[in-house]
Amino acid sequence: MTESSALTLSGLNVGWIGTGVMGLSMAKRLQKERVNLFVHNRTKEKARDLLNEGAVWVDRPCDLIEKVNIVFMMVGLPEDVHSCIFGGHGFLQSEKELSGKVVVDMTTSSPSLALKVGGMLGQRGALSLDAPVSGGDIGAVNGTLSIMVGGDEAAFHKLRYFWEILGKTIVYHGSYGLGQHAKMVNQTLIATNMIGVSEALLYAYKVGMDPWKVLESVESGAAASWSLSQLGRRILKKDFTPGFYVDHFIKDMGIALEEAKKMDLGLPGLSLAHQLYLALKDQGGGQLGTQALYKALERINNISS
Amino acid sequence: MTESSALTLSGLNVGWIGTGVMGLSMAKRLQKERVNLFVHNRTKEKARDLLNEGAVWVDRPCDLIEKVNIVFMMVGLPEDVHSCIFGGHGFLQSEKELSGKVVVDMTTSSPSLALKVGGMLGQRGALSLDAPVSGGDIGAVNGTLSIMVGGDEAAFHKLRYFWEILGKTIVYHGSYGLGQHAKMVNQTLIATNMIGVSEALLYAYKVGMDPWKVLESVESGAAASWSLSQLGRRILKKDFTPGFYVDHFIKDMGIALEEAKKMDLGLPGLSLAHQLYLALKDQGGGQLGTQALYKALERINNISS
Repeated sequence: MTESSALTLSGLNVGWIGTGVMGLSMAKRLQKERVNLFVHNRTKEKARDLLNEGAVWVDRPCDLIEKVNIVFMMVGLPEDVHSCIFGGHGFLQSEKELSGKVVVDMTTSSPSLALKVGGMLGQRGALSLDAPVSGGDIGAVNGTLSIMVGGDEAAFHKLRYFWEILGKTIVYHGSYGLGQHAKMVNQTLIATNMIGVSEALLYAYKVGMDPWKVLESVESGAAASWSLSQLGRRILKKDFTPGFYVDHFIKDMGIALEEAKKMDLGLPGLSLAHQLYLALKDQGGGQLGTQALYKALERINNISS
Repeated sequence: MTESSALTLSGLNVGWIGTGVMGLSMAKRLQKERVNLFVHNRTKEKARDLLNEGAVWVDRPCDLIEKVNIVFMMVGLPEDVHSCIFGGHGFLQSEKELSGKVVVDMTTSSPSLALKVGGMLGQRGALSLDAPVSGGDIGAVNGTLSIMVGGDEAAFHKLRYFWEILGKTIVYHGSYGLGQHAKMVNQTLIATNMIGVSEALLYAYKVGMDPWKVLESVESGAAASWSLSQLGRRILKKDFTPGFYVDHFIKDMGIALEEAKKMDLGLPGLSLAHQLYLALKDQGGGQLGTQALYKALERINNISS
């Protein structure tokens, strides 16, 4: 782990907002490296582990940003990001000096919002980065996330110490919103591939084949994918518990399709995935894992397994 | 490499029909292991390398099957398979004893045809296997193919010596046609994922991002796939030369959809891929590699890169 001298000079007091599945694991990694955390979350109880280890609770984002020079956010939805920054208790409500502070939003959120955040915080002299991640809860725990960064380039370099605690593949993509756009590319890939994983396993089921043997045949060649090996396995075990929630995935696909629409870009595969996941949500699957797409395709085909 | 004593006793004279990109490389691997080849191909010139190394040319499949106990086929289309077996010069035209001979069709062909082949050859006492492969030309050259086998189980075990020369992942799936069904699962995965790869890279292009940086961000996490890393790279290099022909892929998807239809199974993702590839063919892309799907999506979006 390399240390940035700039950071050592300014001290390692850091703000953290959002202690859900991902955020909590990530914040714990920082805490383990002796970073002093000032924490806020909608539900205080979910930050308990961090508080027990010495993190300081702060009631409102506008107070939190006054106490630190760097704030990480990992909340659920773009609305939550919006509220933390522009809301009644948001960062911008602080009357203190914000100049030089860095706000890092690691939530998967909209590129347009990242642009707005960059502009509005910039007016107060603060720097911002959009830095969504991929790699799931396991990646968050192990610090092997892929972190896709957009926004102020100097701030990106300044935070190298933190990136290396949290992730393995760290790429700076350019100005505000491009981290989010990279994440949309990521979600487009996963969404469309999940249709294939679901349909392929359903085909094998319908033929009456041993699905485990089929998986063995196809997972190491040209059909190989992370989703097939990881989520395909869960489908075969009928394990539809969430690694990543259908509800959140639908949010992400909605953002990608919205951005594509703004660019007059037609994405038929992503659109189909979005529709199928909406059907799954309608069937009550919003809180299942994304591999539950298989269930939606079973339903369409009147299969009950 | 283990040797089957049964095979050593009967000698290693083997028939090989089909010396295209895949077939030639595979036959060469057998030849390198001192298997004596009796070769037939529609175009004799394409078998030249094998003949120069001592393979014996045979003009007609019906003559070829009389000279050997094992025949491998790796031809282009189900029609070609049909012709080699049921045609005017096909195996079944031989008036000699076929009992105990083994016919291995490694062409990606229809499960229904494999069933018919199994039945008709079985009436003459011959055994058959459908054994399509995945892993592309590189896998054929290096002997690292995934081989998906259906048909007579005793014959499958008898041929272990050959499987190990040709492939790495060798799975027996059950009776006639199940090897082909496994390959359909494989193609369903690839087809649907290729939509995602194409749309994702097109999204990045349209945003104006550095596509290589985007690839770096997404290829090692949950969006990782063989197609993304291998074919996505070719797309970014604007290399649309065929590793695998669009025309052949359309044939495969057609078979999978036909089989699915027989089972009353709706596969919306595979169907969309099929439609998009048909559009690509209509644009003159039939002889390009499957990564050219990107071009069809460019066209739909009125992008010329």
